[in-house]
Amino acid sequence: MESKGLQPMDSEQLRENAHKMVDFIADYYKSIENFPVLSQVEPGYLRELLPDSAPNQPETLQNVLDDVQAKILPGVTHWQSPSYFAYYPSNSSVAGFLGEMLSAGINMVGFSWITSPAATELEMIVLDWLGKLLKLPEDFLSTGQGGGVIQGTASEAVLVVLLAARDRVLRKLGKNALEKLVVYASDQTHSALQKACQIGGIHPENCKLLKTDSSTNYALSPNLLSKAISDDISTGLVPFFLCATVGTTSSTAVDPLLSLGKIAKNNGIWFHVDAAYAGSACICPEYRCYIDGVEEADSFNMNAHKWFLTNFDCSALWVKDRNALIQSLSTNPEFLKNKASQAKMVVDYKDWQIPLGRRFRSLKLWMVLRLYGLENLQCYIRNHINLAKYFEGLVAADSRFEVVTPRVFSLVCFRLLPPNNNEDHGNNLNHDLLDAVNSTGKIFISHTVLSGKYILRFAVGAPLTEERHVTAAWKVLQDEASALLGSL
Amino acid sequence: MESKGLQPMDSEQLRENAHKMVDFIADYYKSIENFPVLSQVEPGYLRELLPDSAPNQPETLQNVLDDVQAKILPGVTHWQSPSYFAYYPSNSSVAGFLGEMLSAGINMVGFSWITSPAATELEMIVLDWLGKLLKLPEDFLSTGQGGGVIQGTASEAVLVVLLAARDRVLRKLGKNALEKLVVYASDQTHSALQKACQIGGIHPENCKLLKTDSSTNYALSPNLLSKAISDDISTGLVPFFLCATVGTTSSTAVDPLLSLGKIAKNNGIWFHVDAAYAGSACICPEYRCYIDGVEEADSFNMNAHKWFLTNFDCSALWVKDRNALIQSLSTNPEFLKNKASQAKMVVDYKDWQIPLGRRFRSLKLWMVLRLYGLENLQCYIRNHINLAKYFEGLVAADSRFEVVTPRVFSLVCFRLLPPNNNEDHGNNLNHDLLDAVNSTGKIFISHTVLSGKYILRFAVGAPLTEERHVTAAWKVLQDEASALLGSL
Repeated sequence: MESKGLQPMDSEQLRENAHKMVDFIADYYKSIENFPVLSQVEPGYLRELLPDSAPNQPETLQNVLDDVQAKILPGVTHWQSPSYFAYYPSNSSVAGFLGEMLSAGINMVGFSWITSPAATELEMIVLDWLGKLLKLPEDFLSTGQGGGVIQGTASEAVLVVLLAARDRVLRKLGKNALEKLVVYASDQTHSALQKACQIGGIHPENCKLLKTDSSTNYALSPNLLSKAISDDISTGLVPFFLCATVGTTSSTAVDPLLSLGKIAKNNGIWFHVDAAYAGSACICPEYRCYIDGVEEADSFNMNAHKWFLTNFDCSALWVKDRNALIQSLSTNPEFLKNKASQAKMVVDYKDWQIPLGRRFRSLKLWMVLRLYGLENLQCYIRNHINLAKYFEGLVAADSRFEVVTPRVFSLVCFRLLPPNNNEDHGNNLNHDLLDAVNSTGKIFISHTVLSGKYILRFAVGAPLTEERHVTAAWKVLQDEASALLGSL
Repeated sequence: MESKGLQPMDSEQLRENAHKMVDFIADYYKSIENFPVLSQVEPGYLRELLPDSAPNQPETLQNVLDDVQAKILPGVTHWQSPSYFAYYPSNSSVAGFLGEMLSAGINMVGFSWITSPAATELEMIVLDWLGKLLKLPEDFLSTGQGGGVIQGTASEAVLVVLLAARDRVLRKLGKNALEKLVVYASDQTHSALQKACQIGGIHPENCKLLKTDSSTNYALSPNLLSKAISDDISTGLVPFFLCATVGTTSSTAVDPLLSLGKIAKNNGIWFHVDAAYAGSACICPEYRCYIDGVEEADSFNMNAHKWFLTNFDCSALWVKDRNALIQSLSTNPEFLKNKASQAKMVVDYKDWQIPLGRRFRSLKLWMVLRLYGLENLQCYIRNHINLAKYFEGLVAADSRFEVVTPRVFSLVCFRLLPPNNNEDHGNNLNHDLLDAVNSTGKIFISHTVLSGKYILRFAVGAPLTEERHVTAAWKVLQDEASALLGSL
């Protein structure tokens, strides 16, 4: 960069340097299989490699890229590696990446319509498109009283609807009723719900995580919910929020939306559906059944940044009553007033979310939908589900292992069986197996605990994953299992 | 894109298409002065131009780029235009843009250290670098009990520290004390504070926005604060949070940190300093005095995405007691447990913020600091402040106008004086002038209201702005003022 007379946004410097960066990133993807999937560095490694303070004088892009290669990439866990099978995927794609570039290029701050009408309007249109692909009921679309909005993450999505629901009930009952408000969900629900309760001042003991077990494949039982609600009402508490999950983080459990939704409706409870991971699959007709009952919901969320080829972050949230959000989250300072907002002619997304500022969030999702098209996206999902089926078959064919819960989407929950049915040993064994396979750097998987059992999770969903990577991953698991069992 | 066998992350397709996108964006910057700065479209314009649903089959990148040019850019308000003087700036730069590209390329989700150690560690290091440039007290650096974290926006920064402060006092007093908690700030404080109070369940009447006026240049009076605190204590309320601002949104007022901080400390109140805009200037020794007293603060925030060449979003927050944040915001679900976290050997930034997931947030700030260096960054700030001084001089030299508050940084607050001192007419006149100049498309400025007077704000800070743009902007203002005054 120039040292005299800084020109921080010169178009030709941008062109020259950004072309270099494109090649750096394309080369990264070309060589991504050469890195350990899970970073193998020790805590504190980077502080020893970098100076203590920022430079006084500019350095070159080449300096920085050399440091990225030598010092940063060894500390990266490669979520885009084809051998990444941990947690849930976080998809990157050419289209998603191009959308990120364009959004960063325009670099506007779209808090109100006026600050870039295209940003607000494209988001409304694209979420209507996606809502239609998911066959969401029409009252979630922006043509009525509802509409979609892109949040950063599912945590923010559940938080904003919890706040909308909280304030709706407190407007009726008065602010001091806060301590009586009760939230329901299964014990498999993502920890984001508990965090949202904590933020919103819901008393922790009133966040009721109802027990699940293998008899329902870890789905929430409507009977249990009904009973909990009646019990709470009888002690003077106020049920106000139910969160159901389609595709839980531990095991892709699917809560029965229709029965749960009817209970919520009968009790005047806000019903939120978290389909952060599995929502993507519902663009395929054969998987749409898993969100049957969504018509009973007040809000629905899926993360396009997980398994829908849209770079992080992009969490799509739809609500039926946009005013509930706005009443909870709007601000109207003088310095942001403008004709279009004052006349209520427009949507101002600042009132649908926690932060004020927001990027041009819809561009990347728009580009994914246009550059791939529905049919390709359906194939993409089906391919991963088929790879997961294939892995499930490999596990089932090895009598040393068991598949723990029925596979529904692209996650397989399995474990190594403890020799001689010695269950005391089972958890340590699988913990050690997880450590062993992740330490090879060849694959990265993660774990959970179901009914006290330590379970391994194999989630297919990285854009570069092919059958050969699943085959190779299974080989690593078998080899490390053999080594562990042999050393017992 | 390919229609058969989708390869969504093929490195050569990425290379080819991303090079095209680089040229598109570089061309945008080359031609940016040709666009109206403020978009002139009508609400709903885009829905008429785009189809009702996503395509079944893929479209080409050229299709999409043609639509961006023809349909999206007319609806963009060009925050990067050199004639953008509204609100506060939102800087893009070559370095910031490259950092965004790299972050989107790696596309990892850094909620815990293990999910990419480099992401957490680089963020700690870079916020130490920036903290040192700002000469923040050492207890804000990550080497002790404090440290920095990148939030999305200043709204999220004030929210997380408010929650930390709230929960710290509720742990002592019990959850039912919530209704007694009181927050203090001046009436010039950003609306984000009120929104944070609303989210956190602080009763609206306990969010006390103390009155300011021109006698203190709209800074908060320590005497007023002391009195408010004693009054509230005497009625059984519990003061727990004070937000001071360095560079308010309306007029860059600077609250007196040292005196306010001492009052906060004496009353056991969490003291947060919001320097979202003006913090950037404090890397220059001659402006550092405006944050003198920050040593009394519990938390300090500045937005690198405003006036520090780091693309949106990047809001730097430092706290002295990281455990207060963690106690309020941590979750520890089984599926995220890992050795490094369980052994408390590492920082997991998920526990310092609202969302779980997070991008590789520090890369762009690291690249800005390295590719520009401190001296260039100081020159950059000084140049904008000089341009604002120049504009202030132009206004002062035209007797039809007045400068309303003393200019401190790069914002000039001014207005057209109503003819014959007819103050009744002054607000409409300036409102009409704002409309008139923004409708030309040649410049974009915004407004505020101070002591009942409608004021125009001219904020210098876009990376491409040069003296000639300020000169031209003043010409537009003079011409439109002449037309308005002539038509009276």
